[in-house]
Amino acid sequence: MYRNFEHYKNERAALIQRDRSLRTDHSEVLSEEEIKADRVLREIRAVEAATIWNEKYSDIEHPFPGMEFLTGRSIVVQTKLFKILSKARVLLATPFNTWVQLHTARDTFNASLAPTRRIAHIILLIRSGTNLLASLPFLEDWSTFVPVWRKYIYEFLRSSAEDGISYLEARVMFSMEYMIGEDGAQNVPHREWLLIFDEVQNALKADLRAQGKEDEFIGARIIYTALRFIPTEELDWFCEDCISLKKEFPHLIAGFDLAGPENIPPPLINYAEGLLRFRERQREEEVDIPLLLHAGETCGDGTHADMNLYDAILLGSKRIGHGFSLVKHPSLMQECREKGVLVEVCPISNEVLRLTSNMPMHPLPILLNNGVPVSISSDDPGVFGNPGLSFDMYQVLASSEITGLITLRELARDSLKYSTLDPETKERALDHWNRRWESFVKWVADSSS
Amino acid sequence: MYRNFEHYKNERAALIQRDRSLRTDHSEVLSEEEIKADRVLREIRAVEAATIWNEKYSDIEHPFPGMEFLTGRSIVVQTKLFKILSKARVLLATPFNTWVQLHTARDTFNASLAPTRRIAHIILLIRSGTNLLASLPFLEDWSTFVPVWRKYIYEFLRSSAEDGISYLEARVMFSMEYMIGEDGAQNVPHREWLLIFDEVQNALKADLRAQGKEDEFIGARIIYTALRFIPTEELDWFCEDCISLKKEFPHLIAGFDLAGPENIPPPLINYAEGLLRFRERQREEEVDIPLLLHAGETCGDGTHADMNLYDAILLGSKRIGHGFSLVKHPSLMQECREKGVLVEVCPISNEVLRLTSNMPMHPLPILLNNGVPVSISSDDPGVFGNPGLSFDMYQVLASSEITGLITLRELARDSLKYSTLDPETKERALDHWNRRWESFVKWVADSSS
Repeated sequence: MYRNFEHYKNERAALIQRDRSLRTDHSEVLSEEEIKADRVLREIRAVEAATIWNEKYSDIEHPFPGMEFLTGRSIVVQTKLFKILSKARVLLATPFNTWVQLHTARDTFNASLAPTRRIAHIILLIRSGTNLLASLPFLEDWSTFVPVWRKYIYEFLRSSAEDGISYLEARVMFSMEYMIGEDGAQNVPHREWLLIFDEVQNALKADLRAQGKEDEFIGARIIYTALRFIPTEELDWFCEDCISLKKEFPHLIAGFDLAGPENIPPPLINYAEGLLRFRERQREEEVDIPLLLHAGETCGDGTHADMNLYDAILLGSKRIGHGFSLVKHPSLMQECREKGVLVEVCPISNEVLRLTSNMPMHPLPILLNNGVPVSISSDDPGVFGNPGLSFDMYQVLASSEITGLITLRELARDSLKYSTLDPETKERALDHWNRRWESFVKWVADSSS
Repeated sequence: MYRNFEHYKNERAALIQRDRSLRTDHSEVLSEEEIKADRVLREIRAVEAATIWNEKYSDIEHPFPGMEFLTGRSIVVQTKLFKILSKARVLLATPFNTWVQLHTARDTFNASLAPTRRIAHIILLIRSGTNLLASLPFLEDWSTFVPVWRKYIYEFLRSSAEDGISYLEARVMFSMEYMIGEDGAQNVPHREWLLIFDEVQNALKADLRAQGKEDEFIGARIIYTALRFIPTEELDWFCEDCISLKKEFPHLIAGFDLAGPENIPPPLINYAEGLLRFRERQREEEVDIPLLLHAGETCGDGTHADMNLYDAILLGSKRIGHGFSLVKHPSLMQECREKGVLVEVCPISNEVLRLTSNMPMHPLPILLNNGVPVSISSDDPGVFGNPGLSFDMYQVLASSEITGLITLRELARDSLKYSTLDPETKERALDHWNRRWESFVKWVADSSS
C-alpha cells in the first residue's frame, strides 16, 4: 500500500494540502517578513497557551485559550498576543450595531439632556447592572435620543478607528420613524439621521486630521436595517424609504437588511416576494442597494432560522450576517464560494449568546476550510465589552493551530474586498490597507529580534 | 432573475434537494407505512417540544430537546418519543466499552468475591459517588476481576439485547496482560478472556432461547484495543498478540484499535510505521484484522488529536471511533464518503465529556449532509446512564427538524452494513433486521390510528 514510511509521509503531506486547498490563506505568496511575523505569533501563542492560560486563577476555573469571553477577558488583556493584535490598527469591520462602550456612554452622558423620565430611568437601570439581554431594548430606546445618538456615533467611529478599523459598514435600525430631538419631541425623521451621521463622521475626520491621523479612517456607511417582525405588507414602506434615502445620500447607504432574533417567526421566506419587488423597484429608480441579510444565526437543523439561509442565498444577498448554521449546508457553502458571498462571523457574540460555548467549539474553521469568504465582525460590542475587533480576532487566533498571521491578513482583506465601496474607492482603500499591513508585519517580525 | 414567486419557490425546493442530496436518508424508496410512521414521530416530537420540553421544572432550568443529557434525562424518560425508541428493539450498536449500568453491577456484586482490599475500596468509592471522570480508571481496575468481568459482559450483552441491539462489536482494552482470577492472583491471560467472552455470550443466547427470544440477539465480537500511550516499540507486541488471538478465535476478533484521551500525546502518527508493519504481518499470517481507530475526538483545529484523522484515513481504518472533528475536513469527509469509512458517533459521550454543550450544537448534521456513513454508538453507557442506544438515538432525533424515521433506519442499517461480519452472516443479519424494522414501523404507524 505504501512503499515505505517516507512514501506514507509524502502521501500524508499531500492529503493535508488537498484538505486545506480551499482556504484563502493557502498557497499564497508570502513575504520574508510575513513568514517571520507568522512564526513570531505562533511562538507567542504556544508559549502563552502553556503559561498564562495554564495558571491557576482564584476567579477563573479551568482557563483555556478561546474560553468564554466574559470570563476569560481579564486574562486575554494580559496576553502579548492580544497586545500585538490590538496595536495592529490594520483591521476592518462591518459591525452589526451602533453601540459604544457602556462606560463611555455613561461617562459622557449629561443627565440634564434627558428629555423624559423614561430615559433617565433607563440610565439608572444600566447603572444598576440589569440583565444583559433585557437591557438591549432599553439601550435601543436610549440611543434614539438625538444628542445621545450623536455622541454614540462619534464614539463608536472613534473607538473603531483607534482599534485599527479604517472603514466600516454599520447596521442602523430604522424601525422607528422618528428619533427624539433635542427639544424632547419625537420628530426627527430618517433623512436627518443620515445628515447627523455624515456630520459626525466629518467631525471625526477633522479631529483625526488635526492629530495627523487622517490616514487611519476612510469612513463609514450605513446598512439600512428594518426589524424582521414587521407585517409583510409593511416591508414595501421600508424599501421605498430606503430607496429615497439612497437617492439623496448615495455615499451613505451601503445596503439593506432585516434583523431580529431568528428563532422567533416570521421566517425570511415571508418577505421574499417583497424583497424581489424591492429589486424591481431599484431597477425602475436606477439605484443599487445590495441585500446584506442576517440568516442562520442558530444551532437549529432545518428550523426556520436555519432555512433562512436558503432564502438569503436565493435572494442574492451579497453578504450573510452571522450565517452560523451555514456549515451544515454543503451546497450553500459551495454557492458562497463560487458566487463570492461573504459571511460576517461574530465570534464573541455567538459565544455570549450561547450559539457556541467557547471558540474551540465554534464552526469558523469549517467555513475557512471550505473556502467560504469570511470577515470577522462585532455585534453589540459595547454591551459585550469587545470594542473594535481585536478581541474577536484574538479569540479566532488563540483557538486554532492552523490559523495564523496569513489567515488574519485574508480575513481583514476580504472584509474590504467584499465591502460595498465602489471599485475605485475600494482600490484606494486596499492600497492604503496594504501599506498599513506591511508596517504591522515589519513591526511584529522585528519584535522578535 | 425569477419570473415570478412560483419560480422562486421552485428554485428554492431544488436548492434544498441539492443541498441534501448526499444524505443517506435522501430519495430512498419509502413504504406507505414508513411515510405514516415518520409523520407520527415528527408530530410527537413537535408536540413534545411545545409541551413537556416547554414546562417549568423546579430542578431543571431552561429545558429543551437535546439538552445536557445528565440534566435532562428525567424529562427524556417521560417522553412518548423515547418510549417509542426504547421499544424499537431494532437498532444496533458498536459500543466503545464494556461497561454495564453501575447500579446493576453494584446490585449483583458479591463483596465476598473481592480478592483484594483495593477492589472493595473501589466499590466504596463508586457507592459514595466519586467524580465521574476520576472514577473511570477505578472502574477499569474493578472490571478486570474475572468473576466481575463475567457478570459485566453478561449484563452488558443482555441489556443491549433488551434495548433492541441485535449485534455488537465491543472495544475491550487489552492493555494489561493478565486479569485477576477467582483465586485473587493476576494470572488470567488474554486467550482466556476470549474464552470467557464466548462462554458468556453462549449462556445469554441459551437464556434467550429458553424465553423464546433467540431471534433478538445474533452475537457480539471484540475490537482488540491497546492503550494509545504505550511506547512505540511496544506496539508490535500487541499486534502479534492480536494476530495470534485472531488465528485462535477468528469469529471473536472484529478489529484492532488504539484508544486513550487524544489530547494527551503521543499522536497516532507515532504508531503509523508499526501499524503498517501490522498489515504486513497479517498478510504473512493470512489473517485480516481491520483497523477501527479512534481519531479526532476533539474540538481542536490542527491539534494532534485533530491531525490523527489524517492518519486514521491513510492507514485504511474501516471505521473511525468518534471522528468528532472530521467535519472540519472537506477532503477527509469526501474520502469517507467515497471509500465507505463509517464514523461511530457517540452523542451523549461527546456532550458529557464537553466536546459539545448540547445536541443542537453537535456536528452530526454536517456528517449526514455530507454523506459520511454514520452509526450511533454508545461510550461508557454504564457510567453516563445511557444503556443500550435508545438514549443516544433520542438525543439525535429530538434535536433536528430534518432527521426522522428514515434517518434512524439508515443509521441503524449502516451500523450493520459497516460491521466486520463476513458477507454471508451480514446478509442474514440484514434480513433479520429488515423484518424487525417492518414490524416496528407498522407498530408506530398503527399507534396513530
